[in-house]
Amino acid sequence: MKIGFIGLGNMGSPMVRNLIKAGHQLTVFDIVESSVKQIVEKFPANAVAAASPKDIACANLDLIITMLPASSHVRSVYEGPNGIFAHCSPNTALIDSSTIDPQTARDLATIAIHQHIVMLDAPVSGGTGGAEAATLTFMVGGAEEYFLRFRDILSLMGKNIVYCGGSGNGQVAKVVNNMLLGISMIGTAEAMSLGVTLGMDPKVLAGIINTSSGRCWSSEIYNPFPGVLENVPSSRGYTGGFGTDLMLKDLGLAAEAAKLAKQPVPLGSLAQQIYQTFSLQGKGQLDFSAIIQLFQKQ
Amino acid sequence: MKIGFIGLGNMGSPMVRNLIKAGHQLTVFDIVESSVKQIVEKFPANAVAAASPKDIACANLDLIITMLPASSHVRSVYEGPNGIFAHCSPNTALIDSSTIDPQTARDLATIAIHQHIVMLDAPVSGGTGGAEAATLTFMVGGAEEYFLRFRDILSLMGKNIVYCGGSGNGQVAKVVNNMLLGISMIGTAEAMSLGVTLGMDPKVLAGIINTSSGRCWSSEIYNPFPGVLENVPSSRGYTGGFGTDLMLKDLGLAAEAAKLAKQPVPLGSLAQQIYQTFSLQGKGQLDFSAIIQLFQKQ
Amino acid sequence: MKIGFIGLGNMGSPMVRNLIKAGHQLTVFDIVESSVKQIVEKFPANAVAAASPKDIACANLDLIITMLPASSHVRSVYEGPNGIFAHCSPNTALIDSSTIDPQTARDLATIAIHQHIVMLDAPVSGGTGGAEAATLTFMVGGAEEYFLRFRDILSLMGKNIVYCGGSGNGQVAKVVNNMLLGISMIGTAEAMSLGVTLGMDPKVLAGIINTSSGRCWSSEIYNPFPGVLENVPSSRGYTGGFGTDLMLKDLGLAAEAAKLAKQPVPLGSLAQQIYQTFSLQGKGQLDFSAIIQLFQKQ
Amino acid sequence: MKIGFIGLGNMGSPMVRNLIKAGHQLTVFDIVESSVKQIVEKFPANAVAAASPKDIACANLDLIITMLPASSHVRSVYEGPNGIFAHCSPNTALIDSSTIDPQTARDLATIAIHQHIVMLDAPVSGGTGGAEAATLTFMVGGAEEYFLRFRDILSLMGKNIVYCGGSGNGQVAKVVNNMLLGISMIGTAEAMSLGVTLGMDPKVLAGIINTSSGRCWSSEIYNPFPGVLENVPSSRGYTGGFGTDLMLKDLGLAAEAAKLAKQPVPLGSLAQQIYQTFSLQGKGQLDFSAIIQLFQKQ
Repeated sequence: MKIGFIGLGNMGSPMVRNLIKAGHQLTVFDIVESSVKQIVEKFPANAVAAASPKDIACANLDLIITMLPASSHVRSVYEGPNGIFAHCSPNTALIDSSTIDPQTARDLATIAIHQHIVMLDAPVSGGTGGAEAATLTFMVGGAEEYFLRFRDILSLMGKNIVYCGGSGNGQVAKVVNNMLLGISMIGTAEAMSLGVTLGMDPKVLAGIINTSSGRCWSSEIYNPFPGVLENVPSSRGYTGGFGTDLMLKDLGLAAEAAKLAKQPVPLGSLAQQIYQTFSLQGKGQLDFSAIIQLFQKQ
Repeated sequence: MKIGFIGLGNMGSPMVRNLIKAGHQLTVFDIVESSVKQIVEKFPANAVAAASPKDIACANLDLIITMLPASSHVRSVYEGPNGIFAHCSPNTALIDSSTIDPQTARDLATIAIHQHIVMLDAPVSGGTGGAEAATLTFMVGGAEEYFLRFRDILSLMGKNIVYCGGSGNGQVAKVVNNMLLGISMIGTAEAMSLGVTLGMDPKVLAGIINTSSGRCWSSEIYNPFPGVLENVPSSRGYTGGFGTDLMLKDLGLAAEAAKLAKQPVPLGSLAQQIYQTFSLQGKGQLDFSAIIQLFQKQ
Repeated sequence: MKIGFIGLGNMGSPMVRNLIKAGHQLTVFDIVESSVKQIVEKFPANAVAAASPKDIACANLDLIITMLPASSHVRSVYEGPNGIFAHCSPNTALIDSSTIDPQTARDLATIAIHQHIVMLDAPVSGGTGGAEAATLTFMVGGAEEYFLRFRDILSLMGKNIVYCGGSGNGQVAKVVNNMLLGISMIGTAEAMSLGVTLGMDPKVLAGIINTSSGRCWSSEIYNPFPGVLENVPSSRGYTGGFGTDLMLKDLGLAAEAAKLAKQPVPLGSLAQQIYQTFSLQGKGQLDFSAIIQLFQKQ
Repeated sequence: MKIGFIGLGNMGSPMVRNLIKAGHQLTVFDIVESSVKQIVEKFPANAVAAASPKDIACANLDLIITMLPASSHVRSVYEGPNGIFAHCSPNTALIDSSTIDPQTARDLATIAIHQHIVMLDAPVSGGTGGAEAATLTFMVGGAEEYFLRFRDILSLMGKNIVYCGGSGNGQVAKVVNNMLLGISMIGTAEAMSLGVTLGMDPKVLAGIINTSSGRCWSSEIYNPFPGVLENVPSSRGYTGGFGTDLMLKDLGLAAEAAKLAKQPVPLGSLAQQIYQTFSLQGKGQLDFSAIIQLFQKQ
């Protein structure tokens, strides 16, 4: 299949490599030229560089995948005068894998419908590790027919390809899951810090929580207390993993979606403020489980 | 074994029945006389009534178990002039299964040590259902030697008998686990309400969360959104289960313990305030997962 | 002076009347035709209707004032193809009195500078009462020279015309003041409810707070406890005043500005969630001091 | 008048000096002997040392005033076997000026009534500066008749002697006022930090807030932003003033009172957690307005 790919960051580049390995022909673009060069030089037979999103839109490809940092980039790449919608034909399907607010995803989907273009929103979770290993989870919103049509392509980059319902629902699922994750992680950090300060052994405490009703992914798979688990950020100085500032971005999207939906999210909102406080102290690059430091004497 | 049991409420009565079924001899007391009568009349060969905690303390039993509503009752039963410590001999071991603040548990343990009395704190989780079915979890604090000595007795009333470390650690584990539970439940309620308001099917959303990083006991085993799971309080009008006011009590214990330990628990503390707000609206008797109603148009 | 006025809602209409009373010539527009008609029929000699923002922009007026509900309306009136910037000449100055996010205000000011157009942001406080009585406070951002040039015009509609610094600072001042107001009101509501529940007379308690360090505008001028003050919303069933949903809008602007500025606002953010919870219970139309009902048995 | 005084800390010592200056005879006690010595050596004609609270209780004085750090000390001095109630006659009146929880104050008042002893709770605000200058505010709970009887004595140590109603109401007023203060200070800190980060001059911003609806004691009299006001802690490195850990103590009392009263105090409770977070970072000795540092890049 002839695939265009826009956005070759830490996530996009390994995704492209996995598509190429499966034999697809890629046309790639990024504003960082070196990222483009790296791909094209490594795979001269399967990847060509495009000069702009417009070039990709005009290339009469089967599918364009976008993987961009934020809503503003997505809007510009899709809606700008040199963007995809201005130049793309109904022969080309669109999948946006950026994590953005559901409303923007739905606005774009509406434009696509008017132009008779197939479009899906398909944000991912799993981090750069998952992108490299092709074990990402894709949360897909849009018509089910289109989901079924492109599931195999997404499977080349991910392990779980989940249908979430109509347009924007991929973004809803992503943002809502990550809000709950952001809350649970702080909850786990508070609980572990309190229990250990009150005299418990951290491994014993984690063991009890993980067989009781306090159990959550953050306590079981990604415990923030150093030494409880191996091979997680808390056991290597909170390096690697999912950065505090990325969690902050997702909680910002959740807060914005909740505001538009007129839904209260008191814990989600306080979690956002707690990560923001931590980030202001210069800790935004640490894995988000480092939030436990806010509850420990430094 | 000759066992004294003080506190025959919804939890204590089925615990006593399970001990009797295993062949033990019980001497029981409760300030509600009808509760005592019910036990003694049903098991005339194995249960006798005592007139006071003092009577039980003086009866030269092997073990006294207490199961009382709050710290004030525990202090009065153990420390009062007619209480256990004033009249108990070192031949009688003590297990307090009430849920109280860790500091009180440690104060009592210190008195016990001075009187050469064996004492454990062993609060439970699992609710009245677990008490009936003898599937409670016991979180046990005190010397490990004593834990090992009484594990079999506790196993007659529960399924998981977990050693948590020194005196008071049973209470710490209980209070810390329930604080995290109280947080996760509200987080799940916010996430489910937001996702559904934004257009997702509740079962699909729960399915995604439960295979992702937002997964927690509250989303997986006890989902607060009506219709997602069968046989949970959310699917029967939030009746049965673990009442909001009981969760409120445990969050109050956590807040108190955190204050003494000088530990911040911002989400734990906000969770307490949210359940308090809900309780003030007359909802304190509903299962704590009913907190989702605060995030839904009524 | 020949003045254009766009936005004839509850605030804009009385502002226009005050300008007319001072002898100015008004050209007015609103999408609600009846609002336009009401003005024009009452003041046939001093007010004419315009058919669109474009018409007002093309009329070669001395000044255009806009008073619109939200950022999206402001963007459309100023930036749209039939908007002010597309058709306005440097002879016409612009004052936007809408309450919007500071970033949008600054974006518009930048466009104005490029087109050599004088522009000020000048949001108001004081409510519809203040608009009628010409006692509004105007918080003005933009070049000080322009502030001085238009201060007298603004004085026809308000009592305090405050210079806040460069473009957007009027919005910053508004949003930041109202965030603190939203917090203080909930704080006052919590404090009054707690004190009265603990047995104090509400008037005595308010009197003590108002001569102590807890004193704030919400306790002194606008006390939310019924019966403490006369002629405030709390003494007439929370009607009139500043609606909960309007406070919610301003707290949303504050949260958005804080997110962009990477500043934590934990109390501001929790206040927003508390008003949102109250609004979801169908109370969004009540004065924002009605938030005290969340802390009282109903 | 013959007055006993127990508790010669930073507050108690200057209060004693003010009573002596007015010609009263003092019998003083503190567990820190040097504090007693300092008073007695400076005023040999007017002050004598007592060896214990019991000695003071037995001395047949007209009035005993207590000024102690926390509820536990108050309970021990009044209720202990060598305490005031065990040895005091109805000829001696009691005034407790410690800041403690309302419930303890009421428990003590009930005992006093049973022993036919006159007792008032009269916590103060105004800090060590107010104690030196005799400008404290006394918030007095108890029978109005007794308040009137002892108002003149309290006036020797303070400027505002406020009657708050029945027993315990002095403590209620204190705790409720300080909770609102703790909230307003954080609100002011958030607002000032956000406004300045968004580009406003701090003095201009404070000026606008102080003439608008965000106005509060914290913004007007004690602004936390450095340089806005002279002679406040924020302009001298947050030294002097009212320490963060003292504010934390008062917010802890408020949270406890609210829990007993079943009243939600979401902002009060979050404020407590925010000061606790700051204290854990080693800042507990700084004036409580230093909380603004949590919202500023350090």
